[in-house]
Amino acid sequence: MFKKSALVIFSGGLDSTTCLYWAVNNYSVVHTLTFLYGQRNKVEVEYAKKTVDLIKKAGKDINMHFFKIDLFQIGGSALTDRGIAVPKRRTLKDIGYGVPATYVPFRNGIFLSLAAAFAEKENVDDVIGGWNTVDFSGYPDCREDFLKTMEKAINLGTKRGIEEKPIHVVFPLIYKSKMEIVKFGKEMGADYSYAYSCYEGKEIPCGECDSCILRKKGFMEAGFEDDFLVRLKKEGKLR
Amino acid sequence: MFKKSALVIFSGGLDSTTCLYWAVNNYSVVHTLTFLYGQRNKVEVEYAKKTVDLIKKAGKDINMHFFKIDLFQIGGSALTDRGIAVPKRRTLKDIGYGVPATYVPFRNGIFLSLAAAFAEKENVDDVIGGWNTVDFSGYPDCREDFLKTMEKAINLGTKRGIEEKPIHVVFPLIYKSKMEIVKFGKEMGADYSYAYSCYEGKEIPCGECDSCILRKKGFMEAGFEDDFLVRLKKEGKLR
Repeated sequence: MFKKSALVIFSGGLDSTTCLYWAVNNYSVVHTLTFLYGQRNKVEVEYAKKTVDLIKKAGKDINMHFFKIDLFQIGGSALTDRGIAVPKRRTLKDIGYGVPATYVPFRNGIFLSLAAAFAEKENVDDVIGGWNTVDFSGYPDCREDFLKTMEKAINLGTKRGIEEKPIHVVFPLIYKSKMEIVKFGKEMGADYSYAYSCYEGKEIPCGECDSCILRKKGFMEAGFEDDFLVRLKKEGKLR
Repeated sequence: MFKKSALVIFSGGLDSTTCLYWAVNNYSVVHTLTFLYGQRNKVEVEYAKKTVDLIKKAGKDINMHFFKIDLFQIGGSALTDRGIAVPKRRTLKDIGYGVPATYVPFRNGIFLSLAAAFAEKENVDDVIGGWNTVDFSGYPDCREDFLKTMEKAINLGTKRGIEEKPIHVVFPLIYKSKMEIVKFGKEMGADYSYAYSCYEGKEIPCGECDSCILRKKGFMEAGFEDDFLVRLKKEGKLR
């Protein structure tokens, strides 16, 4: 431990925040890469910075990187096409079947390719992401066989691969439920006060999108209060 | 033939122009995807449009797409980092050994991922690119095993893969030399008057970068005059 360097694909949400805490506990050098991809949840980026500030205050250094890429140029998703609505008020049993409207065509393929380029430029060993499939299995680009095949492609298609200093794709949350992710994060001291998950992208989470529903269930089952809501209440923004 | 749809990754250069002529001869629906990636050779894009116009005038319909992505945000290459020089005045024997300074970290991984997203959105069967390794073997992300592994990753990571309507990655030029590429294009009626290859990105090709040197050799060995230079001479821009 504490020997290698990591690049965490960091949206600022619950899963990638958990990964970031895991990384600062396990790597000597930590980079984050946040994509500004024209998503509805732009507010995530501001929150992402605040989460990194919290970790820096705790004495850990983090190199933040941003990459601007406008996926509205492709469209085809409720997150990158204003003509497609984010599904709301669904019950838990409706979530997780089929590919959801919030699926962005090959988003994780695009993000992993860009992360690989950054990893090569910054000489990083491991690329870490918060992909998981337990609660929400509809995203094809979150599955282990996809991630492993992308890792193989990355090492065939980069200078790093040729030089036999492979880049590893690491997915510590892949088989964890939201409940387990919250517990895992809390064990590593995660503070979720600014870890934002809502698809709607407003300051106060909607509480009704798939992401909000799963998060609520996760915190409840793990037996923790949601730091984000606790903070909002403290700030008088939520009753 | 003439049953499927294709998306050609189209820089406007010699190789992708050859692929485009091959595609219009073999597919019923043809899309092009041109990346505006902050490259030195921005002039390529204007030329790309002119090549498409030539094909349209010959009665073939083409749907052009553009995707803006600023790879200067990553850097690390003579093509995306102003601090790194394009190698010049090299002899043929210096070309093709090791990874060249013009290698853009994982560029083809990034481009293929974005092309896969477009292919999924536009319901395209085949993604075609002009990758080849014979004359210029230094780019790791032009090799067949890389391309095949990316294809596998694309079909594991997209809705199309889940629905068992796989996206194919097609590389008709992979084992062709520049001479063979020119011959292959000419057999399909390719007009290279606007197919621009120079790394320098000025209207008149420099004649001295690796790309110019290999192109010159290719036309010479194939026994054709370079349409691009013929046009420049006609326009009085070159003696």
